[in-house]
Order: sequence, then C-alpha cells, then structure tokens
Amino acid sequence: MATDKKIEEGLEFVPKFDSNGLITAIAQDAETNQVLMVAYMNREALELTTKTKNAVYFSRSRRKLWKKGEQSGHIQKVEQILVDCDQDCLVLKVRVDQGQCHVGYQSCFYRALKNGSDKEMELIAEKVYDPKETYTK
Amino acid sequence: MATDKKIEEGLEFVPKFDSNGLITAIAQDAETNQVLMVAYMNREALELTTKTKNAVYFSRSRRKLWKKGEQSGHIQKVEQILVDCDQDCLVLKVRVDQGQCHVGYQSCFYRALKNGSDKEMELIAEKVYDPKETYTK
Repeated sequence: MATDKKIEEGLEFVPKFDSNGLITAIAQDAETNQVLMVAYMNREALELTTKTKNAVYFSRSRRKLWKKGEQSGHIQKVEQILVDCDQDCLVLKVRVDQGQCHVGYQSCFYRALKNGSDKEMELIAEKVYDPKETYTK
Repeated sequence: MATDKKIEEGLEFVPKFDSNGLITAIAQDAETNQVLMVAYMNREALELTTKTKNAVYFSRSRRKLWKKGEQSGHIQKVEQILVDCDQDCLVLKVRVDQGQCHVGYQSCFYRALKNGSDKEMELIAEKVYDPKETYTK
C-alpha cells in the first residue's frame, strides 16, 4: 500500500504529531455525544491515556502533562479512542461527571454565534458548578 | 473585565487565530451529534462560512480556501457555530448528506483503537459511497 493509503485504509495506529510534537484530541461525552473540550497530547500523554484509561493531555500554556481532573476532580474515563483518516486527530469518547470546563460549564462550548451575526454570541448553557469553590481548594 | 475573563465570560466573538492565522473547526452532525471531521479556518474562511452558511475551510496542504463539497458535492449547511472558552476552537453544527470523508465514510473517524491496544485499530463504520466515482467526475 502507498503511504497515504496505508495511513487512511490501514489498521495500524501511527499517530501524526505536528511540528510541536502534538496531536489534537477532542473529548466527546460517550453518553450524550456532546463535544466537551478540545486539547492536545504529546506522545507521552497519549501513552498514559491508553494505559490508564484516564485522559491525560499536554498543556500548551504550562508546557507540561495535564492529567485532566487532577486539580478539579473532573476526570475523564476514556471508553474509546477514535482516529481520523489522516491520523492527525483523535476523538476520545469519555465518561464524565458534572462540569468539564474550568469556567463552570459542562462543556467548553457554552456559547454560540447569534444567528446572522459574526460578532455577537449568546449563552447556550448554564453553569453546573462554581469554579471558585473547586479551584481554591 | 480582565482580558481573560472577557474572552471566557463575554459575549463578543473574538476568535483567536494561531501563529499561522488558523482556528480549529470541528464539524458535528446537527442531527446525530457524530463528529464528522476536523479542519481549519483562516479569517476569510470563517467570514465566508458565517455569510453563506455553507462551511468553508482553509486547506493547509493546498494553502487555499476549501469550500467543503465544491468537488465532491458533500457540502455542509451550517446551522450553528459554537465557540469554546478561550475562543480558539469552533464546533460547527452542520446538516449533511451521505459521506463526509474523502475516503468514503460518513465521518473521518471510522476507526478506533482496539481495546487494550496502542497500535492496532478496528473499523467502526462502513463506507457509504465510492470515492473513486465521486472524485473522477
């Protein structure tokens, strides 16, 4: 098989990390299919995730491994890892408790562009916990 | 409001493009909530998307605007655009016909890591169209 075809049609997992050594990972609620957040993994984070079945990311701002929920308690139990055609993006099907976003919402996607506007958003969710209480513990 | 708080809690849309001028965009089936694909937009692609309500991306490999479906016919009618907490990622809720992935599947995520493996994948979908027929027209 040609390389492209092997990557697209093959069943060998060869994740394509970008020039920073990262791959995009989308966390999707395994039950509701809601997209919860988008983060990044380096090779080590991916290995830890497949091994422990708890989502581990790489924080680009803090430049270190980020065990999701380590501080907040809002861990992600990984049920399944999906891979896209060119193997440069992952979808993690996860089981979660309430509140995956550090702002206080269930999902990081709690706003939408207002219909017809390209500047104004509207809230499409309500907060499910108080981040002040969670993050000052 | 401090800048971070404004970005996270505000209702003004100020998309954060990366150093290449791109923002990550996830296309999610508005009906089934299946994640269909992940692509990138520059400012122009985003403007065209909000204006025409058909998804327009920026192809990183071809270095040009990519009107989804232009060649294949598999367009994406955009119903809603969700924005994440730090405004560096979008979810497009889209209405689509059959076959969003150029390999022939409905979604680009047609494979999953086998349970317990970090090397071997399994197919989790069947092809819904023949890309050979679509792309040689």
